[in-house]
Amino acid sequence: MKAEIICTGTELLLGQIVNSNAQLFSRALAESGIDLYKITTVGDNKKRIEEAISTAGESVDLIILNGGLGPTEDDQTREALVSVLGLGEEIHHPTLEKIREYGKSRGLPYLKNNDKVADVPKGAVVFANQVGSAPGSAVEADGRIYILTPGPPHELEPLLTQEIMPWLRHRFQLKDRIMSRVMKVAGIGESTAEERVRDLIASSNPTLAPTVKRGEIHFRITAKSAEEAEAVRLLDEMEAAFRERLGTHVFGKDQETLEQVVGQMLLDRGLSIACAESCTGGLLTSSLTDVPGSSNYMQFSAITYSDEWKESFLGVPWDILMKRGAVSAETVQAMASGIREKTGADIGVAISGIAGPDGGSLEKPVGLVYIGIDYKGELQVKKLLLSGDRLRNKAMSVKRALSFIYEVLVSAEA
Amino acid sequence: MKAEIICTGTELLLGQIVNSNAQLFSRALAESGIDLYKITTVGDNKKRIEEAISTAGESVDLIILNGGLGPTEDDQTREALVSVLGLGEEIHHPTLEKIREYGKSRGLPYLKNNDKVADVPKGAVVFANQVGSAPGSAVEADGRIYILTPGPPHELEPLLTQEIMPWLRHRFQLKDRIMSRVMKVAGIGESTAEERVRDLIASSNPTLAPTVKRGEIHFRITAKSAEEAEAVRLLDEMEAAFRERLGTHVFGKDQETLEQVVGQMLLDRGLSIACAESCTGGLLTSSLTDVPGSSNYMQFSAITYSDEWKESFLGVPWDILMKRGAVSAETVQAMASGIREKTGADIGVAISGIAGPDGGSLEKPVGLVYIGIDYKGELQVKKLLLSGDRLRNKAMSVKRALSFIYEVLVSAEA
Repeated sequence: MKAEIICTGTELLLGQIVNSNAQLFSRALAESGIDLYKITTVGDNKKRIEEAISTAGESVDLIILNGGLGPTEDDQTREALVSVLGLGEEIHHPTLEKIREYGKSRGLPYLKNNDKVADVPKGAVVFANQVGSAPGSAVEADGRIYILTPGPPHELEPLLTQEIMPWLRHRFQLKDRIMSRVMKVAGIGESTAEERVRDLIASSNPTLAPTVKRGEIHFRITAKSAEEAEAVRLLDEMEAAFRERLGTHVFGKDQETLEQVVGQMLLDRGLSIACAESCTGGLLTSSLTDVPGSSNYMQFSAITYSDEWKESFLGVPWDILMKRGAVSAETVQAMASGIREKTGADIGVAISGIAGPDGGSLEKPVGLVYIGIDYKGELQVKKLLLSGDRLRNKAMSVKRALSFIYEVLVSAEA
Repeated sequence: MKAEIICTGTELLLGQIVNSNAQLFSRALAESGIDLYKITTVGDNKKRIEEAISTAGESVDLIILNGGLGPTEDDQTREALVSVLGLGEEIHHPTLEKIREYGKSRGLPYLKNNDKVADVPKGAVVFANQVGSAPGSAVEADGRIYILTPGPPHELEPLLTQEIMPWLRHRFQLKDRIMSRVMKVAGIGESTAEERVRDLIASSNPTLAPTVKRGEIHFRITAKSAEEAEAVRLLDEMEAAFRERLGTHVFGKDQETLEQVVGQMLLDRGLSIACAESCTGGLLTSSLTDVPGSSNYMQFSAITYSDEWKESFLGVPWDILMKRGAVSAETVQAMASGIREKTGADIGVAISGIAGPDGGSLEKPVGLVYIGIDYKGELQVKKLLLSGDRLRNKAMSVKRALSFIYEVLVSAEA
């Protein structure tokens, strides 16, 4: 089974965006054992899209086209495909209704151009787009399968993994499975974690490879087998060995996030949490409430950006703020206790730091962040020295705070 | 001047890495006015690299090959190129010496394979690699220029910008510059905005093209001219026409964000702001505080996730919460006024909605969000019907809230 991908989008040829969709496709095809021969990127130009389709390798069984399914004049990918294949088009009525309904419910004026998004090649299998408007579609012609897919990554990702790949696997009776599992680690340094699993990293099937992703430490296990059950067995074995080495540092796997795992622990133990944030400006509470059902353990949090509010609302002594400063171990301790007392929550979490680019000094540089946790009256503090820009320092502080909460919950259980 | 790029690397076809080099090349070529026609990505396979070279468009003047210049068996890009062109190879002695010196200084065993990195096509112009070992090189054949470039991004970037692009601009006497500018719009629907500038979109130089990026509406102006001053003039002219059509809906351009623009307006007018967030869980305040210096207008915000806190802290009447519900125009109005009174801020902003996936009903579906603003005692409310998942609904609510704040500030000025 051999495939090619044709990405369309002038913004890709101008370097305005990086082609993350190409990676998404590549990975999905690799995991299903489909050999990807070539990725071609052309602009929003019907003639060049047609050329790219026509010059695909002769032995290729599957051509995936990405982008150019929208309502504007620029969007010409479907038009190019049906023109090369000599196919007609038809309206996909559920999509048309959805588009019109959407416009109506929002009181938008009717624009005829929008209707064209509902057109698909005649006789195509249609993959409904749950997130956006343009559906995916597949047609067979000249002994090949052609698949049209929408360009926006957040629309493509669910469509590809939930609709198109399962359809392809079934259609081609694909058996060789490459399966992978991501193990997620917290509360331990990257190199220490790697040291502990060094011998496992040497394994060839399944493989184990460390990756650092947005401040989290991940390890990817990849297994290959003709039998799905065998691949799963290989993954399970490696996961067990991995967990043996890293114990409770393994907080989750695959799609599980630290905020979900922390949320589930809070839920299971009937604990409530409240945050007092300064430099992260609400981002920690936002992460905690990214989890559905978080209202069970989160009722209130405060962003106390100014010293005055740290004193008046959280009861941080003015003396500490003046002598130790807002960014200090003493202040986050007082903030954590303050928010816990104010709300009656079981756990109070506080963050104060210098996110940058201004506000740093020799003694307290940009990137200095303190996190305090008051767990039922027991206080703990962590000090971070981060090296990113303002947004990255905020994001990293939140990751480290979540990891800290996880550690506290794990040790409270023990 | 027309170009194609051929990227080689099996890791790209397996989705192990994203092709950031393609973006680097695309941007560099665009800025020098070289039209990029196509990007082709193939694996580390001599035959397929040869095919990619052979099937390049006839009218193409420049073909850049990336990757596959290393010492291993997999690295075959130079071999493929000289084979297609029927060229010989020669040793680039400075590179050979550097490689051998490097090995010796580190006490590494001599490996004959490493020497091949110093080979270049016969008669090539060589671009020394200051960071790694494999040099870049350019040859002319069949009336075209072929350029070989190393794969590692940190080697490619300086080689491209400091050596190859200046050489290309000189070699082709390139004068044409392509410059672009992004105009950012808020407080107006995408299709309405497009309607108003439809005739401008028809222009060919400069061009105007709409793009939607993370819930914001952007329009990119691109101008091409032999003279940089002329390109700037074309951009300025189009910007003026664009602003005439969309007025204060144009909130900024290029790197400017809505939170920066709103922040600057608050700063300029000496106004303060405070938020009371429910479904966005702190993300609005986090966005507002992404701006350096935001402590000048933001002192405190609250995440009132539960009804109890909406009542006790913000003073939302229990009656409203029970009869209208937490997600209602009445509640966000009371929340906005409540946070404003509590903090003494000039502007109170409140968000309450159903982010999903649970909590929706026929009457109040997932994606229903109310935003309330109390501007010095004047209340305004917006109702949204979003269609994303939980995280996207949160992010979109924040974008819309920022846009709403911007609108209120604009009309308060008028």
